[in-house]
Amino acid sequence: MIIHLKKNLNKQRIEEIAQLVKAIFYVKDDIAVLVTPAGLKELPKEIQDDVDQFWPMKNDLQLANKQYRSERRTVKIGNTIIGGSTNNVVLIGGPCSVESLEQIDSASILMKDLNLSTLRGGCYKPRTSPYSFQGLGLEGLKLLDKMREKHGLNVITEVRDATQIEEVIQYSDVIQVGAKAMYDQGILRACAKTQKPVLIKRGFGSTLQEFAQAAEFVLSGGNENVILCERGIRTFETGTRFTLDLCGVAWLKEYTNLPIVLDPSHAMGYAYGISDLSKACLAMGIDGLLIEVHPDPKNAKSDAAQQLNYAEFTKLVGELKAMAGVLNYNLV
Amino acid sequence: MIIHLKKNLNKQRIEEIAQLVKAIFYVKDDIAVLVTPAGLKELPKEIQDDVDQFWPMKNDLQLANKQYRSERRTVKIGNTIIGGSTNNVVLIGGPCSVESLEQIDSASILMKDLNLSTLRGGCYKPRTSPYSFQGLGLEGLKLLDKMREKHGLNVITEVRDATQIEEVIQYSDVIQVGAKAMYDQGILRACAKTQKPVLIKRGFGSTLQEFAQAAEFVLSGGNENVILCERGIRTFETGTRFTLDLCGVAWLKEYTNLPIVLDPSHAMGYAYGISDLSKACLAMGIDGLLIEVHPDPKNAKSDAAQQLNYAEFTKLVGELKAMAGVLNYNLV
Amino acid sequence: MIIHLKKNLNKQRIEEIAQLVKAIFYVKDDIAVLVTPAGLKELPKEIQDDVDQFWPMKNDLQLANKQYRSERRTVKIGNTIIGGSTNNVVLIGGPCSVESLEQIDSASILMKDLNLSTLRGGCYKPRTSPYSFQGLGLEGLKLLDKMREKHGLNVITEVRDATQIEEVIQYSDVIQVGAKAMYDQGILRACAKTQKPVLIKRGFGSTLQEFAQAAEFVLSGGNENVILCERGIRTFETGTRFTLDLCGVAWLKEYTNLPIVLDPSHAMGYAYGISDLSKACLAMGIDGLLIEVHPDPKNAKSDAAQQLNYAEFTKLVGELKAMAGVLNYNLV
Amino acid sequence: MIIHLKKNLNKQRIEEIAQLVKAIFYVKDDIAVLVTPAGLKELPKEIQDDVDQFWPMKNDLQLANKQYRSERRTVKIGNTIIGGSTNNVVLIGGPCSVESLEQIDSASILMKDLNLSTLRGGCYKPRTSPYSFQGLGLEGLKLLDKMREKHGLNVITEVRDATQIEEVIQYSDVIQVGAKAMYDQGILRACAKTQKPVLIKRGFGSTLQEFAQAAEFVLSGGNENVILCERGIRTFETGTRFTLDLCGVAWLKEYTNLPIVLDPSHAMGYAYGISDLSKACLAMGIDGLLIEVHPDPKNAKSDAAQQLNYAEFTKLVGELKAMAGVLNYNLV
Repeated sequence: MIIHLKKNLNKQRIEEIAQLVKAIFYVKDDIAVLVTPAGLKELPKEIQDDVDQFWPMKNDLQLANKQYRSERRTVKIGNTIIGGSTNNVVLIGGPCSVESLEQIDSASILMKDLNLSTLRGGCYKPRTSPYSFQGLGLEGLKLLDKMREKHGLNVITEVRDATQIEEVIQYSDVIQVGAKAMYDQGILRACAKTQKPVLIKRGFGSTLQEFAQAAEFVLSGGNENVILCERGIRTFETGTRFTLDLCGVAWLKEYTNLPIVLDPSHAMGYAYGISDLSKACLAMGIDGLLIEVHPDPKNAKSDAAQQLNYAEFTKLVGELKAMAGVLNYNLV
Repeated sequence: MIIHLKKNLNKQRIEEIAQLVKAIFYVKDDIAVLVTPAGLKELPKEIQDDVDQFWPMKNDLQLANKQYRSERRTVKIGNTIIGGSTNNVVLIGGPCSVESLEQIDSASILMKDLNLSTLRGGCYKPRTSPYSFQGLGLEGLKLLDKMREKHGLNVITEVRDATQIEEVIQYSDVIQVGAKAMYDQGILRACAKTQKPVLIKRGFGSTLQEFAQAAEFVLSGGNENVILCERGIRTFETGTRFTLDLCGVAWLKEYTNLPIVLDPSHAMGYAYGISDLSKACLAMGIDGLLIEVHPDPKNAKSDAAQQLNYAEFTKLVGELKAMAGVLNYNLV
Repeated sequence: MIIHLKKNLNKQRIEEIAQLVKAIFYVKDDIAVLVTPAGLKELPKEIQDDVDQFWPMKNDLQLANKQYRSERRTVKIGNTIIGGSTNNVVLIGGPCSVESLEQIDSASILMKDLNLSTLRGGCYKPRTSPYSFQGLGLEGLKLLDKMREKHGLNVITEVRDATQIEEVIQYSDVIQVGAKAMYDQGILRACAKTQKPVLIKRGFGSTLQEFAQAAEFVLSGGNENVILCERGIRTFETGTRFTLDLCGVAWLKEYTNLPIVLDPSHAMGYAYGISDLSKACLAMGIDGLLIEVHPDPKNAKSDAAQQLNYAEFTKLVGELKAMAGVLNYNLV
Repeated sequence: MIIHLKKNLNKQRIEEIAQLVKAIFYVKDDIAVLVTPAGLKELPKEIQDDVDQFWPMKNDLQLANKQYRSERRTVKIGNTIIGGSTNNVVLIGGPCSVESLEQIDSASILMKDLNLSTLRGGCYKPRTSPYSFQGLGLEGLKLLDKMREKHGLNVITEVRDATQIEEVIQYSDVIQVGAKAMYDQGILRACAKTQKPVLIKRGFGSTLQEFAQAAEFVLSGGNENVILCERGIRTFETGTRFTLDLCGVAWLKEYTNLPIVLDPSHAMGYAYGISDLSKACLAMGIDGLLIEVHPDPKNAKSDAAQQLNYAEFTKLVGELKAMAGVLNYNLV
């Protein structure tokens, strides 16, 4: 159950109530928002006088649930707002990994030239082998920082595990929680304590319910700026790298109130399908796209097969902008 | 290997050659087309003088492979052609099951009113329980036949198993091989002997390679009118009925030369996502859509949750037509 | 709901009642067994006087459900009985495909030498490519027939689709419905009309519920001799051919009353794991094993990687017999 | 490639060589063990004089690969050794979560009474909802510590994320890396720096290759005491909680050199199947079992459905011991 307490309650009373109903709570705009386990279906008598509004919930998808807030939430990325009734679609582009100043600067110029606002680039790579390129780490974060300053771009980068979460919070405009870290409470609970936007990627073996509930760890800690990112699930089909779950996106749109970004690059795993899939995603009605682009994909240090080159990316952005115009979206 | 023999060969010589290279063959426009197991990589000397053209192939995806014919094939459904460079997208609509004359006539009128050409309706239902509604069988086929006559619609209906394949071939304009029957050689081999279009649905547990190879059973028998239909695969995600595999569609577009129809209704399993998914499918660039619509979905005898009502369907068709116009497709 | 009518009812009354409750029925030992859709939870007043016993059921897993018959059913294969309280475990062995008289005779001699009763061998192969070896067909069935006569072995062979079901019923002691044909009602309904045992393999994309319900098509037609065979499901893991679902076997043992045979050969897809898996299967408590063995696996015309050679098979049978002795099972 | 350098090399030369071939290295028994990316197939000339032995590898499954060390490694848990040629099978038992002194003491007494050596109990629970019971945390670790002292049991407990890894290393005899944390390099790299045994559970969406490679993060840091634990993967089948992948276990036995523990409790998710599955696992030939047992499963704070009660556990242990005796294993 979600409970909004009345505005004038003191901290001690709030804590008393929270303890009584076994709730997590945070305070926003002077309102204490309590969330109890979903098992609680009726308001206890002892607290009825203190309650402004309450929502019994069917399961632990609570703050992210449309039954609680029916309109899509807004999230501000730098100066760009997505979600709500903005019709904005943020097209996040950039290389899989930050590899060098030259490379990331080049990608930044591409983004600026195309009038796009938000740059991606991995610094801590969650590779499945310790013997592969692991990312530039802090050095990469500092390069992203430079790009923000030099080009005025928002930057988004992935946190791999809880040991570098503070650095990532410090250096990025959007914190990306990667698919392999979706259940990582060390990360999620740290993200709950900042107000920076958090983009949570769906674990490739995670159900929609689990995915949406990962957001609850951030929301219930008081950070309402959460974005969900579908990036493909693992299925029996190995002709493509993963399987982009657009039925799942329809489900997220029906049941959750969070902005949704789609990542066709990681789903497909091959450059050839990215263009068609990006158009499909845009046509569905979503809040953002995440597309990998690299100055020289064949020699990329990670994800070589799936990154577009500049010509492909430029062509695709043009097509998406045309389509966005018709469908009444703004590609930002 | 695919081999085109020279035009003037007599039947005996063709058969000799086929036996020598262990090939299946058919004759089309006076050309004998032989297909050997993909293991054969070089043309045997004994037959080189008889060969016009040949294509060594990597695996048993052969006649459906873009390496053999790089352009998308065309298929004629009634008076409508899809595939090739037509930019036509056939929007197949109708109820899950033919339930009564009144019901199917009503659906037919809806289709005509929306200027659409092709009506679906199941008569032999591949239910997973013997205690559910099994379809009207031959009686249903005859109702579809009436709709063709009365309204000038093309009709497509599903064959459940090999025992009713001849009836389905006789009464329908397009033979639908259902997902559960994708491997059914009794059906596929019978479809190879007609020239009617065959729409093969992907088995929900079948790989893309297996799916495309199912078409080889029909193509190699001499029926070149094959359409592939992606309708969702079975994954760990059960929040939706199946998972529509659009990465797989990108793969099919890259590697096969067959027209592609998408079925968001069976993939999603719920009416609420059909509209968004249909738009996504259309934006990808495909040859057809298959959408279930019923005069009274709640009381449908099968697939009650996923069928659109007339208002929803009409609205969706309007939106798809607008989008098709912009993207330069013709919805037929 | 399952309904046993009283013994002395005439055929007309039975049909009247069946029609009234929309039931399928068969008569066994003078008792009419009716099965209605599971939606029916209460006995209609009009028929209460005609009913001997009845079982309201939760879903359409009915005749195969332990709630209806709590003891494991018995099935007779030739002179061998499995299931019930027999503790018999039938070890079905033989090649993937019948390839020649010499080959199948050799395998038969191996089986006899090891004191085993039941020989497998495919004649109609459900290959995913039309360009692969398709099996010897009727000629193969006749070779199996010879083996039965010459060596006194029971033979089991697969039906691929409904076009050869009558032949397979005629020539085999156990009809095998393959994984790709699990939903094939043309086959299942034909199997319902014989009294020969039917071994249904689980579709590799089929849920346990669907699998068990496939048996209902046979059982509700009056053939009670159904065996369920788990042979691996398709998952994201491709290091092995399929994933043997022993959790699923535990489910089948808990909820169904049918004998269970396991097929580690097709699940694993590689000879190296068959021995360990066979022991695991036996230790679980099941009614049979199906293991592929070939005189010369490397040159087998199908499934070359997974068939054991004679030495491996002989060693494994010895180990299984030792283990069976200790666990109080009889390997037959 | 794995490279063993000659014994008498100084640290500077080792580092030079490591840098040259882009290797990670550790020193064990005076031998520097270097691991380069698997792409390196030939030994560079400049270092040939410094090399004692080397193993070119096919992929990044290197130190855990049988091609490097063909015998199963041993791991010491307290005074118990598993793996190698010991034939020991450690039966790890205990509740899902440590809930109270009384509860964990009671479980410890049960373990001692059954002559078993190793107790499990979760303190940091990786729940999918922030509103569920999250475990006792440090307090729980201290209770486990007491159990070690009081009953002489080895204790194993799970690390949820990198923020509590140091505590878990300090208080436990075996560090359990949970399925949801399998990719967590913050955890894995910390585990590489201790010599305590590490039990890595397979992510339920992770391939066998990825699973085995997770071990490489620990092994390549110099901790050779790694155990792999299969605990069920996520498939389309939801009748059971997960699908225990015994084909995968056969693969691990064929290709890796690490001891293997199986967890039927989490795979099955229901108490009814645990007994059959445990016997199957034991019969396969593995190094350990992990089975959840609780004094009062229905009122357990987590995983209520799958924990055995004491009577069930006691009966099962008796049966497993009998079977182990026959199969020549020692249940410890």
